[in-house]
Amino acid sequence: MTGPEPAAEMRARRTRLRALLESAGLDALLVTDLVNIRYLTGFTGSNAALLVVADDCEDHDEGASEPRTRFCTDGRYTTQSAAEVPDLPRLIGRPCDRALIALAPGGAIGFEARSVSVADHAGLVHAAGDAPAGLELTATLDLVEQLRAVKDAAEIDALRRACEVADRALAELVEAGGIRIGRTERQVSLDLDQRMRVLGASDPSFETIVAAGPNSAIPHHRPTAAVLARGDFVKLDFGATVDGYHSDMTRTLVLGSPADWQRDLYRLVHAAQTAGRAAALVGATGAAVDAAARDVITDAGRGQEFSHGLGHGVGLQVHEAPSLARESASTMAQDMCVTVEPGVYLPGRGGVRIEDCGVIRRDGYQVLTLTSRELCVL
Amino acid sequence: MTGPEPAAEMRARRTRLRALLESAGLDALLVTDLVNIRYLTGFTGSNAALLVVADDCEDHDEGASEPRTRFCTDGRYTTQSAAEVPDLPRLIGRPCDRALIALAPGGAIGFEARSVSVADHAGLVHAAGDAPAGLELTATLDLVEQLRAVKDAAEIDALRRACEVADRALAELVEAGGIRIGRTERQVSLDLDQRMRVLGASDPSFETIVAAGPNSAIPHHRPTAAVLARGDFVKLDFGATVDGYHSDMTRTLVLGSPADWQRDLYRLVHAAQTAGRAAALVGATGAAVDAAARDVITDAGRGQEFSHGLGHGVGLQVHEAPSLARESASTMAQDMCVTVEPGVYLPGRGGVRIEDCGVIRRDGYQVLTLTSRELCVL
Repeated sequence: MTGPEPAAEMRARRTRLRALLESAGLDALLVTDLVNIRYLTGFTGSNAALLVVADDCEDHDEGASEPRTRFCTDGRYTTQSAAEVPDLPRLIGRPCDRALIALAPGGAIGFEARSVSVADHAGLVHAAGDAPAGLELTATLDLVEQLRAVKDAAEIDALRRACEVADRALAELVEAGGIRIGRTERQVSLDLDQRMRVLGASDPSFETIVAAGPNSAIPHHRPTAAVLARGDFVKLDFGATVDGYHSDMTRTLVLGSPADWQRDLYRLVHAAQTAGRAAALVGATGAAVDAAARDVITDAGRGQEFSHGLGHGVGLQVHEAPSLARESASTMAQDMCVTVEPGVYLPGRGGVRIEDCGVIRRDGYQVLTLTSRELCVL
Repeated sequence: MTGPEPAAEMRARRTRLRALLESAGLDALLVTDLVNIRYLTGFTGSNAALLVVADDCEDHDEGASEPRTRFCTDGRYTTQSAAEVPDLPRLIGRPCDRALIALAPGGAIGFEARSVSVADHAGLVHAAGDAPAGLELTATLDLVEQLRAVKDAAEIDALRRACEVADRALAELVEAGGIRIGRTERQVSLDLDQRMRVLGASDPSFETIVAAGPNSAIPHHRPTAAVLARGDFVKLDFGATVDGYHSDMTRTLVLGSPADWQRDLYRLVHAAQTAGRAAALVGATGAAVDAAARDVITDAGRGQEFSHGLGHGVGLQVHEAPSLARESASTMAQDMCVTVEPGVYLPGRGGVRIEDCGVIRRDGYQVLTLTSRELCVL
């Protein structure tokens, strides 16, 4: 699938942001969070700022130019930014945030309070004092992040491709006999990561978890020199980054014949995961989706052993809004991309987690990770 | 080589920090930068805060306990923090920064103004208002960073091991014929990165640069599908992360017989790099070290083509204090670890950079990257 032109997608995102700025009574937003800048412009470098002016294209015609919205980066990125951000007026200068404040229109200028440090804020206040137009710096929270929670077609396509790389890498690893008795957790993780890179991932989405035997009972275990042994659960939690988008999946396998307690534990988590996917519907609260899966585990007397939330949004960050957890304040909306990942962990024995990544569609949760969820015995 | 016990190193670092706090008139410092927390405690997780109380061990006996200095992390890291931070009173709670402020002694409590966001600062002010003792939050800049610029024995040992992994990986890559006509930049970078991981790197220090032919003229080039061809310069800029410490090195090779312009360019950069290493002496300013190398290039009429600074500190971050550059305010001190990396880039043709990582010792710059600097023809 090919979506609309990237530049048109970015422009549509900025148009949606302008609507938010207007409801918040802001004349502009200074965007300094690099992930938000990538979302709004496509820029992938390590230093930039963006000033989005609220009434820059008053007719809301997405084809119109945005003469007062400005992108700034430094001299290292002159060529790269010309290629990645062809459609916005660009400024080359340092520090980027202050350079843009000096050009801001008058009025209420929002800044991202989670991204701007106290030291940078002092610099902004100083630059605002020097600006020709009178302007007032206003702290904002999560304006761009709330847009990012709902994915557009290009983003869902990137996530689909990221999930595909992870699925393929696991299938190749299994087929090549890469998950076998005698290998270490670390060898398996290096092998899986390298397969994702060869298949086109720029990187794993996060530090890959390979947890064998009793280590599978540690929810976030770092791969060690522990050797895979017969009868072990092997839990793999991993993902691929493709075009900046992060997939995230977990599968738990057994080496050799599973014991009865392993079959029972797997069956329980599988049932909880199925219930969680079924509950991930437009309009459901994050707490309700979590409860749908958690109740299955609690009813089996294992509630204490499911020690984390059910899932989270994925996108340009591997953890982002919305949250699927007991205390979640989120509500599921169409085209949110979230994980569903219940787990039950029996300390000293082993644990099972099954995690998919998918999109909330009008008719239900559409899974993007296609590897079978049945108990795989190697 | 094995250094002193890690816990003793960390305690000595905190003792040095207390001396800085006293000269700054601070009663305590709230450390929130995760790299600084790792430096002061050994903790490697993703969420923590540390409160270092200035007069916590008044006799400055490094063996004394520090009853009022406190480390805080969240429930995910209960086990990990017990292993990594055995010697400090620990608190499990969230948000960590506010939990510690609530326990702070009265007086002037510094916070790290580059690390604390405006949003987090608002939370701290609120927590300070609730604290039993009257306390005043005071912005600080680079207190721990200035300590980190001078490395102790354990750090130099970690950097030496990180450099060794990178050296070995390059030697293996060359010996295996991994840098050859017909391979893509991306294939070479994946191969080099994987060799570093197998040799014990937790990760590359940064996105490895492999730049062939005309791409070698781009100082920071991302590996592409460009194919290595006969007569190309191949520039490799890469490093290994070992125990959190980052090596950084660049070598530029030629595929097949070098042309005269390539020999000349290489000889020039080699001479500049030699001059830079010779000037990296205790007491020299960062600007003077930069000038020693830059003058060689400027005298050859290539000053415009050396478009970046000469080097930078390396350690828990791949770029840290001190700076070796025209505008550097740094002065070299014994046991600083810095890179020396002049480059000359001829757009459209090719470029050469030669970079070492080393320690400033009393008797001169001790190189840690041991790969030959002579022109290597493959």
